[in-house]
Amino acid sequence: MRSEIRDYRTGGDEVVLDITRDCAEFVVGEGDGLLQLFVPHATLGIAVIETGAGSDDDLLSALGDLLPADDRWRHRHGSAGHGRSHVMPAIVPPYATVPVLDGCLALGTWQNICLVDLNVDNPDRQVRFSFLAG
Amino acid sequence: MRSEIRDYRTGGDEVVLDITRDCAEFVVGEGDGLLQLFVPHATLGIAVIETGAGSDDDLLSALGDLLPADDRWRHRHGSAGHGRSHVMPAIVPPYATVPVLDGCLALGTWQNICLVDLNVDNPDRQVRFSFLAG
Amino acid sequence: MRSEIRDYRTGGDEVVLDITRDCAEFVVGEGDGLLQLFVPHATLGIAVIETGAGSDDDLLSALGDLLPADDRWRHRHGSAGHGRSHVMPAIVPPYATVPVLDGCLALGTWQNICLVDLNVDNPDRQVRFSFLAG
Repeated sequence: MRSEIRDYRTGGDEVVLDITRDCAEFVVGEGDGLLQLFVPHATLGIAVIETGAGSDDDLLSALGDLLPADDRWRHRHGSAGHGRSHVMPAIVPPYATVPVLDGCLALGTWQNICLVDLNVDNPDRQVRFSFLAG
Repeated sequence: MRSEIRDYRTGGDEVVLDITRDCAEFVVGEGDGLLQLFVPHATLGIAVIETGAGSDDDLLSALGDLLPADDRWRHRHGSAGHGRSHVMPAIVPPYATVPVLDGCLALGTWQNICLVDLNVDNPDRQVRFSFLAG
Repeated sequence: MRSEIRDYRTGGDEVVLDITRDCAEFVVGEGDGLLQLFVPHATLGIAVIETGAGSDDDLLSALGDLLPADDRWRHRHGSAGHGRSHVMPAIVPPYATVPVLDGCLALGTWQNICLVDLNVDNPDRQVRFSFLAG
């Protein structure tokens, strides 16, 4: 397994950050196998969705309804509603697997691999890219 | 890695489509390893749930509450509420992994592998089956 | 692939059960590869979240809001609201993948691997641990 950590900066706002290009680059030159993505954070998720046509904002809005940024959370410190960021990875998992064929991601036309970050207090993030040859 | 695309028709209604039989057939003759399922679509998810005892309809109802088919979505075209189908894969992911032992899926008695499709505008779907020998 | 079933008792209450220690122990002595976890149950999920600081209870509360334990579910038997436990695995999946490096889980500091069990009628649970060398 080839495995590598890359650093990202998600900033101080809720964000859906497209990392598809880095995923594609990571598997260039490989054959067939599986790309496994993993974020070593308790307040970060990975989603495979379309970006750039409104759905990234739609996802943040939906998560605002499903996991409101209010004072309901037992886990609380930092910004208001921070506790919801710790529940999110149960629903938007911190891992994903994507098939790789002849060094190319087998994504659909409209699919992008994205970090989902509601946590406005921790802008420094890491993603582990791992490739298992098949 | 052995990998193969199969075509499905999900029709014009919201649907939970059981593909367990095709998954089982795909790994017949293999040894131990991992079945990875992936759908190359931005509006389709994979769920491992019980089917045929009400839970498939319960899932569609729950998704109707969690991601309502109304006009809240920025991404909009086609049928009303279409944008929710683009948010769904962040919550019901477009991939799944299932252990395979001696050519058999290591599923529990009541588990079935299903496509979850809220998108009534695109009935033609593909699923990629990949087997990684372990 | 090395694969093994372990038994757990989740008891008669909703619970988030931390199994990180067993996961770590399972991969000791291995090299690099992927830990795949799978629960052969239709009413059980796996989440990678922080435990012991309120977020486990926050997750149970959030699931109480998102999938209420009332009489809305078509699938019904046993305790009130049981049907929601059958919808949960579409949202909190029954599998997870975690990278392993030199026999160690590549988890972040605050990440724990947990069973999520809303089903108060079935306290006897199994988890399949599988390691794919990479």
